[in-house]
Amino acid sequence: MTPGGPPPILFDVYGTLLDTASVARACETVAPGRGAELGALWRARQLEYTWLRSGAGRYVNFQAVTEAALRYAVRASGARVAEDRVSALAGAYLSLDPFPEAAGALTRLRGAGHRCGVLSNGLPEMLLPALRRAGLADLLDPVLSADAVHRYKPHPRVYGLGPRALGCPAGEILFVSANGWDIAGAGWSGYRTFWVNRAGAPDEELDAPPWASGPTLDALAELLGAGDPDGIR
Amino acid sequence: MTPGGPPPILFDVYGTLLDTASVARACETVAPGRGAELGALWRARQLEYTWLRSGAGRYVNFQAVTEAALRYAVRASGARVAEDRVSALAGAYLSLDPFPEAAGALTRLRGAGHRCGVLSNGLPEMLLPALRRAGLADLLDPVLSADAVHRYKPHPRVYGLGPRALGCPAGEILFVSANGWDIAGAGWSGYRTFWVNRAGAPDEELDAPPWASGPTLDALAELLGAGDPDGIR
Repeated sequence: MTPGGPPPILFDVYGTLLDTASVARACETVAPGRGAELGALWRARQLEYTWLRSGAGRYVNFQAVTEAALRYAVRASGARVAEDRVSALAGAYLSLDPFPEAAGALTRLRGAGHRCGVLSNGLPEMLLPALRRAGLADLLDPVLSADAVHRYKPHPRVYGLGPRALGCPAGEILFVSANGWDIAGAGWSGYRTFWVNRAGAPDEELDAPPWASGPTLDALAELLGAGDPDGIR
Repeated sequence: MTPGGPPPILFDVYGTLLDTASVARACETVAPGRGAELGALWRARQLEYTWLRSGAGRYVNFQAVTEAALRYAVRASGARVAEDRVSALAGAYLSLDPFPEAAGALTRLRGAGHRCGVLSNGLPEMLLPALRRAGLADLLDPVLSADAVHRYKPHPRVYGLGPRALGCPAGEILFVSANGWDIAGAGWSGYRTFWVNRAGAPDEELDAPPWASGPTLDALAELLGAGDPDGIR
């Protein structure tokens, strides 16, 4: 980072750049008419399992957590799915849709001089193909994974990966997430934070409010004065 | 504990002995027609906040977590409640209904020689009045609180309170909870576990299944051969 220049930005991936709700399509194939419901339960359990395992010091990687959460969600939903089908369905996390504004906003932020990377719970083996398919991989560097420290967000060791990789204090990095609890975790670890509050949810009551928030990644680009790179800023 | 005698039992409190859904009545006073919904959101956020804070090393006590979760739930529900009213409403956690079979089952288990205590996230200042009002306090000793270690379940330091207080290894203690994730946490820490699966939920996918499970505390008493203390066992 250039001292005094545009701050580097680390993005959360799931729910922030990639739309976890887009697993609903794949879920429809095993639970017709209830794909969205199954996908939401899957995602909720996936998060819970990361919190529980990290909090208890019982790390298994994000692929294993994602498959376990899906097995739970499938059984809770009453869908009948063969075990090998569950593993295949878990592959939906490798082909999530990007949010429609993601590529454009990242391009504008880079054009304005911001280094853009990611800091995610996901395994590199999950993140890289997913970001590639979504057309975002070339816009993002570094790709930092919680797997490097065998903890999950909001453990401070995970957020500690950012300053280490970027060579500057957390307070000089902007962390961007659509997950309110992730904003709190990053704030606890000293980052400046931007909350992509896509759902218009209330602030979490975790004593670490975001520095700023907005409904989309475009709102972040606008806030940082990152105009259309083809136009005049 | 008598070596080879009936094992001591530690119970979770919220959702296991006391019915957290009974806050719905109090919630009705601020969200008419939506008390159950507000109460469920409150409880869900209360759990999430314990996991997040414990996992990040950002402990605040259970009273503070309970009030913060309620503030979030009230705002998310769109209810209009004055700040001082929120604190008063949080007091609902001091007068939760016991599950109908709790006193009877505890009495039978004690009659069969089991020492019965609790191991809870709650502060002693919350647990003791709540258990007293519910008519259970005299049946339970010790009352162990996560506050002693400034972590929340499923952190192993919390479960470590049991063996320390009872003077025997976790494997000789039966831990009883209606929360599937709490069963996993206790199992990870070496306890034998009984899951009061009140809702008929699927097993959690956390690699620590319960030793046994049943729909109520009576099922536990029956499993342990703890008959009616007024009858013949």
